[in-house]
Amino acid sequence: MADKIEAYVEANKERFIEELKELMRIPSVSAQREHDSDTQACAEWLVAHFQALGLEARLVDKGGKPIVRAQAKGKSSRRVVIYGHYDVQPEDPADQWKTPPFEPTIRDGILYGRGSTDDKGQSFAHIKAVESLLKTEGELPCEVIFLLEGEEECGGEALSRYVREAREELKPDAVIISDSTMYDENTPAITYGLRGILTSEFTVKGPDQDVHSGAYGGAIANPAMVLAQILSACVDPDGKILVPHFYDDVAPLEKWESESIEKLGFDDQAFVGELNVPHPHGEAGHCTLERIWTRPTFEINGIFGGYTAGGSKTIVPASATAKISIRLVPHQDPERIRDLIVEHLRSVCPDTVRLEIADFATSPPVLFDVNDPTFQAAQEALRRGFGSDPVFIRCGGSIPVVSTFVEQLGCPVILMGLGLDSDAPHGPNEHFSLESFIRGTKASVHLLRTI
Amino acid sequence: MADKIEAYVEANKERFIEELKELMRIPSVSAQREHDSDTQACAEWLVAHFQALGLEARLVDKGGKPIVRAQAKGKSSRRVVIYGHYDVQPEDPADQWKTPPFEPTIRDGILYGRGSTDDKGQSFAHIKAVESLLKTEGELPCEVIFLLEGEEECGGEALSRYVREAREELKPDAVIISDSTMYDENTPAITYGLRGILTSEFTVKGPDQDVHSGAYGGAIANPAMVLAQILSACVDPDGKILVPHFYDDVAPLEKWESESIEKLGFDDQAFVGELNVPHPHGEAGHCTLERIWTRPTFEINGIFGGYTAGGSKTIVPASATAKISIRLVPHQDPERIRDLIVEHLRSVCPDTVRLEIADFATSPPVLFDVNDPTFQAAQEALRRGFGSDPVFIRCGGSIPVVSTFVEQLGCPVILMGLGLDSDAPHGPNEHFSLESFIRGTKASVHLLRTI
Repeated sequence: MADKIEAYVEANKERFIEELKELMRIPSVSAQREHDSDTQACAEWLVAHFQALGLEARLVDKGGKPIVRAQAKGKSSRRVVIYGHYDVQPEDPADQWKTPPFEPTIRDGILYGRGSTDDKGQSFAHIKAVESLLKTEGELPCEVIFLLEGEEECGGEALSRYVREAREELKPDAVIISDSTMYDENTPAITYGLRGILTSEFTVKGPDQDVHSGAYGGAIANPAMVLAQILSACVDPDGKILVPHFYDDVAPLEKWESESIEKLGFDDQAFVGELNVPHPHGEAGHCTLERIWTRPTFEINGIFGGYTAGGSKTIVPASATAKISIRLVPHQDPERIRDLIVEHLRSVCPDTVRLEIADFATSPPVLFDVNDPTFQAAQEALRRGFGSDPVFIRCGGSIPVVSTFVEQLGCPVILMGLGLDSDAPHGPNEHFSLESFIRGTKASVHLLRTI
Repeated sequence: MADKIEAYVEANKERFIEELKELMRIPSVSAQREHDSDTQACAEWLVAHFQALGLEARLVDKGGKPIVRAQAKGKSSRRVVIYGHYDVQPEDPADQWKTPPFEPTIRDGILYGRGSTDDKGQSFAHIKAVESLLKTEGELPCEVIFLLEGEEECGGEALSRYVREAREELKPDAVIISDSTMYDENTPAITYGLRGILTSEFTVKGPDQDVHSGAYGGAIANPAMVLAQILSACVDPDGKILVPHFYDDVAPLEKWESESIEKLGFDDQAFVGELNVPHPHGEAGHCTLERIWTRPTFEINGIFGGYTAGGSKTIVPASATAKISIRLVPHQDPERIRDLIVEHLRSVCPDTVRLEIADFATSPPVLFDVNDPTFQAAQEALRRGFGSDPVFIRCGGSIPVVSTFVEQLGCPVILMGLGLDSDAPHGPNEHFSLESFIRGTKASVHLLRTI
């Protein structure tokens, strides 16, 4: 029977890809208001698509962007929630795309375009798995509820509000999510740990407007220089975070985790070569995978102030801003870390400027027990779909809704990533392997049959 | 006779102002290529204006933007060069202008618009002085050569090339420049010292493109953070510059200078109140005027990297850039300081990123001998034009061409500023007092008659 379903996937994969491209053409950038109507159109496209497949589908409005909810009964009474997100990152920097971000393009079996891997492509594999099961077997092996949100990239709260409200109605036996990565292109993986995240921005304000650096320079604080000094007081040159008590609650790695990481034989040279950076960089005493998966960070995502166009302009800027994100690891508490950071920023900022700190969006870190039987079923499904042995890994990224599922639904959450870190999910030329898309579709078929 | 000329200025001042507004409507932004045709048009407007006044006027092409050269013989054989610049700063930040930068607007006797004070308005006072002398006396008391350049705001070299080439032909008895400030709105001033300047920008480069801060953050250097750390290693929180040997050649103040600064009774509270900054800031052991006039600085004029639009974007930026300007004081040598800075930037930059440093534009500091008789004539002319006693001051700004005049022409250079620091010369809402414009026109008349 499983062979017949895999055959259906093979026979229809060109159409699956065309449909995915259609979905990717809708620029559903949730962080930018000018794309609000596109985000809405994308949600409506998905509802129509689910309805055409025979699922009961609708938009759920919980404030913010709509949630796409689609449901189909199954042979057994077991119920699975499949989570994904249909919103995407901004296209910025627009001039670095080789082909337009919202005109999906295939080169050498790789699909390029915003949302290809994060997360339209990965989510769509599950939609096509459900189609394949329905078209070959007439019904699903278990009940499936898709929840596809439109606020993953902008820290929205609609989905977590909905999950909190609908927890009794949803009550699944497992949640399946593909919004992370395989270990490498030949090694599928189940992610048992995610870093949490805090995002915010702060602005150092000086004079009411930019002033002449000849007439004022040297006698008033330069907001951009103060910003640089504040940031330098947050992270030392080795990458250690200088915020007092920041590391207090960081859990040390278990022995099997250190061993497992070592066994993966991560190649630092390939890593820096692929990015074209001269050397790795990070906290002393930790290897690259530990730094990414198991250690917290304090990153500047963007920095700006003063004159940034061509040529020179001799001013003292009125203000300078840093957009920051702090990655958290078990068992750091986002609220406590936020308070520590705010206190530290205020304590290191001199009184010659004003400091404005925006609200923080937060998501806690997550760690799963890999001994849960559902994780075994998932491991087997990946082995069959991909034809190779999967590994258990952690992920340096954050999926804000996962902790909500953990807290509200109390069931295992299977993170079976189909992407790769090198897919450039938030950068220009985001892409996704079409082979992983099809193998992932097959793995999803197997998982839904055995979970 | 002088009264008759002053009466001409009074009788024609409304027309003078309308003509200045016409000149300011031409957006001659030299730093921005898209304004190249405007810069050319501005130069041509001036040539036509000079010709209509009866001067022999033409454009001089020495590469870059054209120089406006206008000449008229005089009764005596003495010859004066009047320097100014017709190019202006970019309008940026465009959204902070209350009225459009290139639509001059008068409110309460103040003329608002880009170039009003820096330097179209100040230069135009001398043009109208020459007109007033010609129309009332039929000829000028001395020979006048106007040299108005179009590259002052973008560090161009055309004018200094021309002055070097034409030094024998020009050979003036004095150079007059109005591109600086009065001491305050009631106190005209002659500036006997200017800070020099170095401008450049440097970029910290990390990965080839922005990458996901979850997938890579913690394991590669963040270029924006490295930029902040490098900048913090250049200036300490008290404003002291940390570049080794930076202060080696700084001349200490003479006794009369310190006393003169003290006598001016500068009001720190009014200074910070006007800018709306909480407190003054700068090198310990120096008062505000000393910090601005007599101490070197290391300023960030602009900083940018990564995601700078709305919302958040969780990336490690590919690069981050700082535009910097270093103000120099007597007797710092620009080339030596440039080398020290480049060496310091390279020495503090870690090997986990690449550092690209742009070429430096340089201009040396200048200091004049206030005992020269030409300075006495200028002092008297200002006293008559403004009806109050002028003071000798220094200026924190830089006029790149002044040192060229000093080196090539070997004559006194009279810096009689008509603007105010609070005119916002490089910021939004740049403005110029129309009373200073008219008084300055009269002072110029007196100076040309007595120099």
